[in-house]
Amino acid sequence: MSIKDALIVQAKKAKEAARILAVVPTAVKNQALEAIAGELENSAAQIIRENNKDLEAGRAAGLSSALLDRLELNEKRIQDMADGLRELVRLKDPVGDIVEIQRRPNGLQVGKMRVPLGVAAIIYEARPNVTIDAAGLCLKAGNAVILRGGSEAINSNRILAAIAAKAIAQVGLPADAVQLVQTIDREAVSVLLGLTDYLDVLIPRGGAGLIRRVINEAKVPVIQTGVGNCHIYVDQGADLAMAGRIVTNAKTSRPGVCNAVETLLVHEEVAPELLPDLYNRLKEDGVQLRGCPRTKAILPEIAAAEEADWYEEYLDYILAVKVVSSFDEAVRHINTYGTKHSEAIVTNDYARSQRFLQEVDAAAVYINASTRFTDGNQFGLGAEIGISTQKLHARGPMGLNELTTVKYVIFGQGQIRE
Amino acid sequence: MSIKDALIVQAKKAKEAARILAVVPTAVKNQALEAIAGELENSAAQIIRENNKDLEAGRAAGLSSALLDRLELNEKRIQDMADGLRELVRLKDPVGDIVEIQRRPNGLQVGKMRVPLGVAAIIYEARPNVTIDAAGLCLKAGNAVILRGGSEAINSNRILAAIAAKAIAQVGLPADAVQLVQTIDREAVSVLLGLTDYLDVLIPRGGAGLIRRVINEAKVPVIQTGVGNCHIYVDQGADLAMAGRIVTNAKTSRPGVCNAVETLLVHEEVAPELLPDLYNRLKEDGVQLRGCPRTKAILPEIAAAEEADWYEEYLDYILAVKVVSSFDEAVRHINTYGTKHSEAIVTNDYARSQRFLQEVDAAAVYINASTRFTDGNQFGLGAEIGISTQKLHARGPMGLNELTTVKYVIFGQGQIRE
Repeated sequence: MSIKDALIVQAKKAKEAARILAVVPTAVKNQALEAIAGELENSAAQIIRENNKDLEAGRAAGLSSALLDRLELNEKRIQDMADGLRELVRLKDPVGDIVEIQRRPNGLQVGKMRVPLGVAAIIYEARPNVTIDAAGLCLKAGNAVILRGGSEAINSNRILAAIAAKAIAQVGLPADAVQLVQTIDREAVSVLLGLTDYLDVLIPRGGAGLIRRVINEAKVPVIQTGVGNCHIYVDQGADLAMAGRIVTNAKTSRPGVCNAVETLLVHEEVAPELLPDLYNRLKEDGVQLRGCPRTKAILPEIAAAEEADWYEEYLDYILAVKVVSSFDEAVRHINTYGTKHSEAIVTNDYARSQRFLQEVDAAAVYINASTRFTDGNQFGLGAEIGISTQKLHARGPMGLNELTTVKYVIFGQGQIRE
Repeated sequence: MSIKDALIVQAKKAKEAARILAVVPTAVKNQALEAIAGELENSAAQIIRENNKDLEAGRAAGLSSALLDRLELNEKRIQDMADGLRELVRLKDPVGDIVEIQRRPNGLQVGKMRVPLGVAAIIYEARPNVTIDAAGLCLKAGNAVILRGGSEAINSNRILAAIAAKAIAQVGLPADAVQLVQTIDREAVSVLLGLTDYLDVLIPRGGAGLIRRVINEAKVPVIQTGVGNCHIYVDQGADLAMAGRIVTNAKTSRPGVCNAVETLLVHEEVAPELLPDLYNRLKEDGVQLRGCPRTKAILPEIAAAEEADWYEEYLDYILAVKVVSSFDEAVRHINTYGTKHSEAIVTNDYARSQRFLQEVDAAAVYINASTRFTDGNQFGLGAEIGISTQKLHARGPMGLNELTTVKYVIFGQGQIRE
């Protein structure tokens, strides 16, 4: 069977499973999540054995130590996956809620019922724990899921997906609700992107290259996630001690994630006071600065920022710094170079704090806080399937609600339209 | 300049206009809507003159009378456009509302602010009034809009878009907020579909062919609208007089629209009583039936339905009829052949009414009412830009809210992440 035919068979089964899942009571979905968690714990040795095959192949292929670290599953990480599933059990199931019900003048009652999206396809890279995290979120929201992980994690993903499917079947739900694409052939991704008859949404999770490919090729609706070229703007009159704490936290608490800050913008009035101290503090943490000419006039020893730096998501201990002459210049810089992820102002000026919220175009806009809070747990959604940086459907961290849609439900007594 | 370069120039201007529109007070947007309405009334003679050019060219090209009717603008239709804009003035502006604000344990206040989408591109067919309706809706929701109408209406669309842009500039807003694609070359559509750097959403309004083309080619996110293969299922024990009224209304009140019924499903227990009367009633209105074998056993004189009929959106005085053995068969038929638009059950059984709402996958699911109510005005949204039949972002009639998105706004006091 061709890759395409095999995927269509999988997708048809997923669609059929989705019809069943859509009307399953919450208690049964929770039993399935518990069952997967239990199976993971019971199968830890087997999972580690399969994961070792991936690690060995990865080492042989010369993968970087960072990539090998992402690939690794150990007792602790398996327990984390199980714990994550049990946290999902505690989250409210949004499916079936009816919101905004209104009585129209003709007596029709028109409401909106929250319902699953249907079949989701998740396309991701090295980390095998996404297999379980994504399956759990989709299941709780009533969606079937087709998972396409990175080829370097194929053995780990196969065992994890098989465990999930088996556990789901144990509680009487269709095993086809969680399916892994079994081939590692890249053609499979292209096929998935075109399956408009079966898939309701594609969620790519990974680097800029993967996301670009999905957006360019997909015919199925996509939710774009992840790339974060985040800024912090320190306004004139800001509390500079607060600014220092926020910038340091946003850069150094976890530089490799999408909500870390990549460019610091500083108003010219506060730059001479803020930058020398901040530079010393960041240097201790191993952060290198790249500055605009006005920054370099204050900190001559740092590297010069090129135009390309303003576009860069470093995901590393590097921070670009630009001195600006005005609030407007800062906002314009952010709206020009940003990736619409997370943007912050440090200010004590009321009017500019409000203008920043209004004028900056991003998924999350902060006053006086670190950009690192853009996260499903931090925003109170519980677990998340990714952070949307597009504007349709969902923006920012995507939790269970964002894995559902609504349908209008209309309660009539025989009404006809004039 | 190439078509692509010209469109990029337009799109850049639209993006700049969108930045301004996003923060304009409601009162100013309302002044712009009033100004467009006034200009339309003052320019009626000129509009009719330009429209006559399109009508003459259309007649020369042998367009059908139905198409010529859709193309025509007269005093009444111009007044309707102006009235529509004034109704938009009365609708609540959703932009800037903050919903769901919550205080997190660390004191951060996390809310969601409703904001415009940015730049919308509307791709539509013959009816020139869409130029004004879409421009008005986008403007009120704070979006810039690029309009691409049908080539047969190019003279009408040019004068209407020019009037809108002029009126917008009169109140001090950027004229670039409403722009028409000036060329009628089909290449322009392909270019628009790829402008991911400038356009936030594409909304195609038209027949199945246009919508398919947009979905297949677009890289910009699309909201799919319109195709409606709608069903009514008459359950065992239903009030057959009510069923007759609802089916007749849903088929004959306006057969050419997407919320008209196309297939009737009848439970076998009520088919012998319902169908003969209903057939006579529909025949008076000129409706032809196409029946399954069991329907033809009751009404031998009607045409036979082929498999293709179950897929058909007739948009005409034709109704496909199928007798089913069970509720489950009816739901399965709808979920197999339907286009996820509007689906109704006529029943007096409580449990099955609830199951229908849960199990039927469509934008609008009705109990005991005509499918013809799927409409922005009927659902209380005011004017609509189309009826979404996809699941992401918006489902069913799309009003002002659906032309916006949200961003997270976070009010901090210096919080950093542990």
